Amino acid sequence: MRDAIAYLKRAVEQGRGLARADLVLKGGRIFDLVTGELTRSDVAIAGDRIVGTHGDYRGAVEIDVAGKVVVPGFIDAHLHVESSLITPLEFDRCVLAHGVTTAICDPHEIANVLGVAGLSYFLDAAMATAMDLRVQLSSCVPATHLETSGARLEVDDLLSLARHPKALGLAEFMNFPGVLARDPACLAKLAAFQGRPIDGHAPLLGGLDLNGYLSVGVRTDHEATSASEALEKLAKGMQILVREGSVSKDLRALAPIVTERHSPFIAFCTDDRNPLDIAEEGHLDFIIRTAIELGAPPLAAYRAASISAARIFGLNDRGLVAPGWRADLAVLDDLESCAVSRVVTAGRIVGDAFYAARALIAPVGRHSVKARRVSAGDFAARGQGPSTQAIGVVPGKIITERLPAILPFAKGLRGVDLDQDFVKVAVVARHGVNDNIAVAFVHGFGMKRGAIASSVGHDCHNITVVGADEADMAIAVNRLIEIEGGFAVAEGGRTVAELALPIAGLMSLMSFEEVRKALIPLRAAAKSLGVALAEPFLQVAFLSLPVIPHLKITDMGLVDVDRFEFVRD
Amino acid sequence: MRDAIAYLKRAVEQGRGLARADLVLKGGRIFDLVTGELTRSDVAIAGDRIVGTHGDYRGAVEIDVAGKVVVPGFIDAHLHVESSLITPLEFDRCVLAHGVTTAICDPHEIANVLGVAGLSYFLDAAMATAMDLRVQLSSCVPATHLETSGARLEVDDLLSLARHPKALGLAEFMNFPGVLARDPACLAKLAAFQGRPIDGHAPLLGGLDLNGYLSVGVRTDHEATSASEALEKLAKGMQILVREGSVSKDLRALAPIVTERHSPFIAFCTDDRNPLDIAEEGHLDFIIRTAIELGAPPLAAYRAASISAARIFGLNDRGLVAPGWRADLAVLDDLESCAVSRVVTAGRIVGDAFYAARALIAPVGRHSVKARRVSAGDFAARGQGPSTQAIGVVPGKIITERLPAILPFAKGLRGVDLDQDFVKVAVVARHGVNDNIAVAFVHGFGMKRGAIASSVGHDCHNITVVGADEADMAIAVNRLIEIEGGFAVAEGGRTVAELALPIAGLMSLMSFEEVRKALIPLRAAAKSLGVALAEPFLQVAFLSLPVIPHLKITDMGLVDVDRFEFVRD
Repeated sequence: MRDAIAYLKRAVEQGRGLARADLVLKGGRIFDLVTGELTRSDVAIAGDRIVGTHGDYRGAVEIDVAGKVVVPGFIDAHLHVESSLITPLEFDRCVLAHGVTTAICDPHEIANVLGVAGLSYFLDAAMATAMDLRVQLSSCVPATHLETSGARLEVDDLLSLARHPKALGLAEFMNFPGVLARDPACLAKLAAFQGRPIDGHAPLLGGLDLNGYLSVGVRTDHEATSASEALEKLAKGMQILVREGSVSKDLRALAPIVTERHSPFIAFCTDDRNPLDIAEEGHLDFIIRTAIELGAPPLAAYRAASISAARIFGLNDRGLVAPGWRADLAVLDDLESCAVSRVVTAGRIVGDAFYAARALIAPVGRHSVKARRVSAGDFAARGQGPSTQAIGVVPGKIITERLPAILPFAKGLRGVDLDQDFVKVAVVARHGVNDNIAVAFVHGFGMKRGAIASSVGHDCHNITVVGADEADMAIAVNRLIEIEGGFAVAEGGRTVAELALPIAGLMSLMSFEEVRKALIPLRAAAKSLGVALAEPFLQVAFLSLPVIPHLKITDMGLVDVDRFEFVRD
Repeated sequence: MRDAIAYLKRAVEQGRGLARADLVLKGGRIFDLVTGELTRSDVAIAGDRIVGTHGDYRGAVEIDVAGKVVVPGFIDAHLHVESSLITPLEFDRCVLAHGVTTAICDPHEIANVLGVAGLSYFLDAAMATAMDLRVQLSSCVPATHLETSGARLEVDDLLSLARHPKALGLAEFMNFPGVLARDPACLAKLAAFQGRPIDGHAPLLGGLDLNGYLSVGVRTDHEATSASEALEKLAKGMQILVREGSVSKDLRALAPIVTERHSPFIAFCTDDRNPLDIAEEGHLDFIIRTAIELGAPPLAAYRAASISAARIFGLNDRGLVAPGWRADLAVLDDLESCAVSRVVTAGRIVGDAFYAARALIAPVGRHSVKARRVSAGDFAARGQGPSTQAIGVVPGKIITERLPAILPFAKGLRGVDLDQDFVKVAVVARHGVNDNIAVAFVHGFGMKRGAIASSVGHDCHNITVVGADEADMAIAVNRLIEIEGGFAVAEGGRTVAELALPIAGLMSLMSFEEVRKALIPLRAAAKSLGVALAEPFLQVAFLSLPVIPHLKITDMGLVDVDRFEFVRD
């Protein structure tokens, strides 16, 4: 309290210009998200808060931002840090530079492997990051009863963490069929978080079923993939988090809804984004720039990226460049390019020394890949005849199609058909709970030889392997067991590329720069198999996600998501 | 928890249309504040929450609203219930019918008389009202050191109430000079409420001083009286509560800022509104209707009246007609007239039986008018010569002017000058702390005879009396002492009209209908003295408010508000 009073005294002095401010961004323009105006103004900062705009200020530290535009720091409204394959602290160092000063993460991936220990790892890390990392507590671990996870989270587990200062609310409630069926365990979690932010996840849900889902207090959705879907959701008070990830790319379809009118009810999110895309395209800066390119008014885009996201999640201290608001700022070359030249987070300009001084967070989830070694025979595809249903991948989408397939069939076994582009997909349980292996077929990879395996496999993160050749499938899977998980490409009887992800089989121990470097040959190796997809590993990783329509595969079998049951043929 | 789960189960069933909803508004249109569209839709309600829109629903109770428009219930973002002269429960009954389902009140008036007991009275009442009455804890009691109040509230007093479920944050921080001067007691209160809603009060404050004031976390202002003032505040992130009260009427000046662009950062408030105006014009419905008449787009006006106010104050469960949102609804004939035909509050249609069944809240602050009896001689105006400064009232404003006056002067005493429209104004201390009486002159009443006295006198609520005749001034004041406070009009040596306000000298024990009836002859009596002001009693009541420019009077003397010191001449 005494500190708080002393701080306010300094803030008033510095805001009135009676004393030099701690930090001044001098000579730039600010983009005012209330009026939409670009205004010449210094920005004076005391401690972690802006104390002066619309005036000339002197500062203990002054940064010349002449010719630049100052906007509020960006808020990524929904993401899984694990999808960047790096630790939360590496994520911080990687993404803050793109202007992201607040990230609302759901540690759903690590929670499916480790449970409470995974959530605690993120909450601990969030106390150390330079950006404000907020944690939505993972609501659906496992997401369904149709798969084998490494852990379960019940309502009491979530409540044990709910008072942590970095815990925000309840993360995406993917089990919407469970809500619609009034499953008591689902309703108990929802009941426990009434009045706090509850994220939704309701791809293609509409009509009265959407109403039923919203009635439990769900307030956001990041799964809308068309403007018409988003408009129904908006009209029903469901705030839309427009997503542009590495696999799920909805921005082009949703840009028409990013209007000034809708802007208070729209935010942006990356959901799942890998370090290569972050390096090559950017992060939230990429979404803003692309939204504007696609015709979104800059005011709507920058509101969505800051003040609107803040209000949607009740983070009422941030989102404007104005006195009294949190000093989270991005300095841009101009609004259209959204080229970030400097970032201020809670009043600090963060550099290597700061990053190096952050508290160390010990890795968790080592040796988490507990599958038994496999052989080619484990990937035999038994069936009644040549006719089956295959998963049709859609480039850049996590939604899949349900394709009828007529496959080579002999001795009760179906085989791959490379001409028709049907190869095998299998999921190998890896949490030490059982030795499940399920096998089916997938269309759309263009794979001509070899196999790709991944211990990243949403959401239970069993091992998913796609292959034209059963022996290579086994080699790739066995290699993952050896290296504690990650990605592996096998061809001609040997592993040709790999990336180890020893933290829960999901995240690397390396720096983001090293991971980025490792991904390039890995992607090249996958493409050398004939794979035509831009993001082969992430598309593999989403084949096992049975909360996304229409046909998916888990360690327990092929899942008809629309009927929420296994396909038996 | 078990109840909450059972409720969510019902909500999903009713939202999906699997069971009849508790209540359905059938056949109307809803005004969607996200998209701006008017859409044909039933509204289904389960318990206190909307569970269905954009569909046809069956209900246990169905209300035909064909031809009507359903909008979110209105939120009055800032008001003093005491100014309506009725108890909080009577206010509830009076104002809910105008569509106001949430009112954010500051019990500043009763707090100046009774301190913590006054705040507790409001918090208790808020637990009983049909509307959601939220209480901002009064921050500046007394507002200044230039007056004698009945109580003081220190930071620990406020903290003792801060966890009450109806306590929202810190009420209008009127002592902005104290903030700018870094007064430790002011900063302590502000420090204690960081992160919660803190209302501002900064008439005419701009430039670096406004920055300093905002740096302490103040987020709203309801004192802007011109568009240019409001625009500077908006551009500095200060959310504007557009006020239209009985005395302070800012809507005409501020309507140009009520645009769709600004609408997320704008709310409406009445601040101080008397029962006659509520009956004759309306309440928030009047503000909405008038804003639209003045050119505000309906979307901007209805947003300001609901979702924007909700977000500004962190009331994130309300403000849209959408599934999962609080069932606070107003049913209108049409958007332009804002004629409210029905109101739903927390899912209930409230009638006489409900009002009668509310918990009784015992009156507080009886016998609070503790002044000694006065005589004509107490109102002698001593001075050095004929030349002085007089308070110039501005009709419909609480800001006053500082007027030079040359008055009749004899034997060291200044006298009234009816031709020039200078009459006397005096403030008589009434809290039993001292016997202060201050006397000065006021211009603009048009009073030709008699006197008007009021124990409502912002903010310390001493007795303020305006008179053309010292004997009548004494009669009016003495009558107020007898009737435990209120309003009195004296003429020709006797009291000709009165209204008793025995709750803290501020509120009546009568119903709002009776108070309304009593105000008509009272106003007529005031006007019969020659008074030309539309609201003579409220204008009297604000003469003593030394936080509003430019010249005011307290029991301690004439105050130059701009210099924040007494005038000695």
